[in-house]
Amino acid sequence: MARKGLIVQKFGGSSVANVDRIRNVARRIASYYKKGYSLVVVVSALGDTTDELVELAHTINPSPSPREMDMLMATGEQASSSLLTMALHRLKIPAVALTGPQSGIYTDKDHTRAKIVKIIPKRIKEEIKKGNVVIVAGFQGLSPEGDIATLGRGGSDLTAVALAKALNADLCEIFTDVEGIYTADPRIVKDARKLDVITYDEMLEMASLGAQVMQARSIEVGKKFCVPIVVRSSLSNKPGTLITEEVEGMEGAVVRGVSLDRSEAKITVCGVPDRPGIAAKIFKELSKAGISVDVIVQNVSSEGKTDISFTVDKADLKRSIDILAKVVKQIKAKDVITDENICRVSIVGVGMRNYPGVAATMFDVLAKNKINIDMISTSEISISCIIKDKDGKKAVNALHKAFGLSKGRKAKKAR
Amino acid sequence: MARKGLIVQKFGGSSVANVDRIRNVARRIASYYKKGYSLVVVVSALGDTTDELVELAHTINPSPSPREMDMLMATGEQASSSLLTMALHRLKIPAVALTGPQSGIYTDKDHTRAKIVKIIPKRIKEEIKKGNVVIVAGFQGLSPEGDIATLGRGGSDLTAVALAKALNADLCEIFTDVEGIYTADPRIVKDARKLDVITYDEMLEMASLGAQVMQARSIEVGKKFCVPIVVRSSLSNKPGTLITEEVEGMEGAVVRGVSLDRSEAKITVCGVPDRPGIAAKIFKELSKAGISVDVIVQNVSSEGKTDISFTVDKADLKRSIDILAKVVKQIKAKDVITDENICRVSIVGVGMRNYPGVAATMFDVLAKNKINIDMISTSEISISCIIKDKDGKKAVNALHKAFGLSKGRKAKKAR
Repeated sequence: MARKGLIVQKFGGSSVANVDRIRNVARRIASYYKKGYSLVVVVSALGDTTDELVELAHTINPSPSPREMDMLMATGEQASSSLLTMALHRLKIPAVALTGPQSGIYTDKDHTRAKIVKIIPKRIKEEIKKGNVVIVAGFQGLSPEGDIATLGRGGSDLTAVALAKALNADLCEIFTDVEGIYTADPRIVKDARKLDVITYDEMLEMASLGAQVMQARSIEVGKKFCVPIVVRSSLSNKPGTLITEEVEGMEGAVVRGVSLDRSEAKITVCGVPDRPGIAAKIFKELSKAGISVDVIVQNVSSEGKTDISFTVDKADLKRSIDILAKVVKQIKAKDVITDENICRVSIVGVGMRNYPGVAATMFDVLAKNKINIDMISTSEISISCIIKDKDGKKAVNALHKAFGLSKGRKAKKAR
Repeated sequence: MARKGLIVQKFGGSSVANVDRIRNVARRIASYYKKGYSLVVVVSALGDTTDELVELAHTINPSPSPREMDMLMATGEQASSSLLTMALHRLKIPAVALTGPQSGIYTDKDHTRAKIVKIIPKRIKEEIKKGNVVIVAGFQGLSPEGDIATLGRGGSDLTAVALAKALNADLCEIFTDVEGIYTADPRIVKDARKLDVITYDEMLEMASLGAQVMQARSIEVGKKFCVPIVVRSSLSNKPGTLITEEVEGMEGAVVRGVSLDRSEAKITVCGVPDRPGIAAKIFKELSKAGISVDVIVQNVSSEGKTDISFTVDKADLKRSIDILAKVVKQIKAKDVITDENICRVSIVGVGMRNYPGVAATMFDVLAKNKINIDMISTSEISISCIIKDKDGKKAVNALHKAFGLSKGRKAKKAR
């Protein structure tokens, strides 16, 4: 049978969490196959497998070697890809399972967070030509040393988007446990609305700001190579959200979504001597330890001293404090203060770059709701405010309403 | 540090069944390393992992494809090898985990029971040169198609022995949950004695006759290439049993051991027309289905008809009956009778080929114990009798005593 077109699909761990769900995914793939599509399906590890393997490893060695961690974790996707293939065979669909290395995915040697260097999908193309649905173990590839390397959390998204590019696929579908990208987290905002279309840039802001539907790097790759991506539910047949390039007048709204990120903690280094190179010293030491620093604010200097505040991932807080304890002595600063009870509320939209009043509206809305803004960070298409954690939910709802994002409402222009 | 010599060690699933045991194995490897040996360690999957994976696969597809089964099952050893390596790192021992394919183990394409075709241990040698203990995922290799193939049950033994040959190792140690090879199963014969030395041929008879300590194919490979093998316990420091070539006057005994195999069932095809080619027809059909037939006895012909009896593995009994139902019609035989309540008791010893009276002694001992012999099979160094299952334990004890195999006793010559 001549095939209609090539679709790359990705199913996350929750979509294959148990035998019934694996069968369900197999039936969905079978229906696409019967419609005449060629299919390459990227699959994550079953349910919580990866977490369980990580826990087991840490029981044996609190600091396991990244190379062996990758070898261990890659078994999760190797197992799920073979099981899904067996489920397809049961439905009489010709299919073959391939590991990341077999799929021709080559990475650098940065184990546990490797980058894809190139893809040579020779074997995949051969299997497609044979009429097989190709089931690819996500999240993994082959390092220059010939070892298994994994792509970090959410790496299966990257596998799917990168394969879609390498195979020149017509579409990349990311199946997940939500029905698409929403104007806000529906668990927080009752009348959040699913978006039909979103730009790569907006999605990137949403992903990196805590929407957590898709891995940020995979969206970057999608943007770079203009891979059309659809995010949709593996449990329903609803159409999902298309992630694509910016389209003139797209849905007309200035602000497309509001996100809430509760994963960060705030650190303030007090009484820092206000001399060139001192701030650099602080951030260099953190960077050396692989700690990413976000929103940075430096106060106006007073008597040659200043305070520097920034946010880090909560998981990195303890290590950051340890590192800063030394730095503070070296640079003769006064103290380090931390605050875990913060959150970041952000508004995102490609439209806002043409409407300078958006930031003012945001600050106004927060002020009217008596929410104090601690720090502010802006990009061309987003504005983030660090506020008290307890105010997060109220802030998101107020902003969602103020920017007219609710279901059925018309988009409201910023003042 | 210059290394003393190279030892290949193999640890079975029960030796790495949980975190404590993995740590225990790591400590043992560390002690060898500190004594100055180069080490290549083959490891099986954790405890019952393989059984669990097989069960999961069969839930999804009652007849899973062998290729995908291999991909699934190989994850067990990949995981255990990486975990054991992490445990060694914790003890500050330099170590690296390799999959079967990474270890340069190439197989044929007979998935789930592949044979090793060649070993190119380039990577292993490089890692040894770097000073690493090399932990190899047992039971697996790379097929000509570039797929993961497994070597069948007990395949990790084969990995170890074949690597010992390929690396020209000084010794191959098989660590298991027994302390060595015994004159009989200690659970059945109270005063069974551990042997210090046994020949490959004797061990082969013991392995294929149900001693189950080591995979038969791995012993064949050991014999072919004269690999010195020691079977010993992973839970004690006792010396174990050396498997080696025949040595003149080795321990002086005629019979070295008594084994009991309860895994077979007896099939009798009754009223078979006694014409050339008829027996061949029966066994050809079974062979086509991959069913191995053992002990074969054909009765004296009576009125142009005869009965043919043989044994098959109990797991193959149902399939055998189905196949024979058709064959019986084709060859116009009368009936098929089966008996699962049988066992095979065997005596083994390279010495017996010089003592023709051994068989007579065996039959005599069984007769004196009122045990009826159903079928008899002999090789140059073993004699097996098929008897009633309920008589098995009594037969083994009587033979063990009669041939003077008990602890502290002198070997007794056969009459």
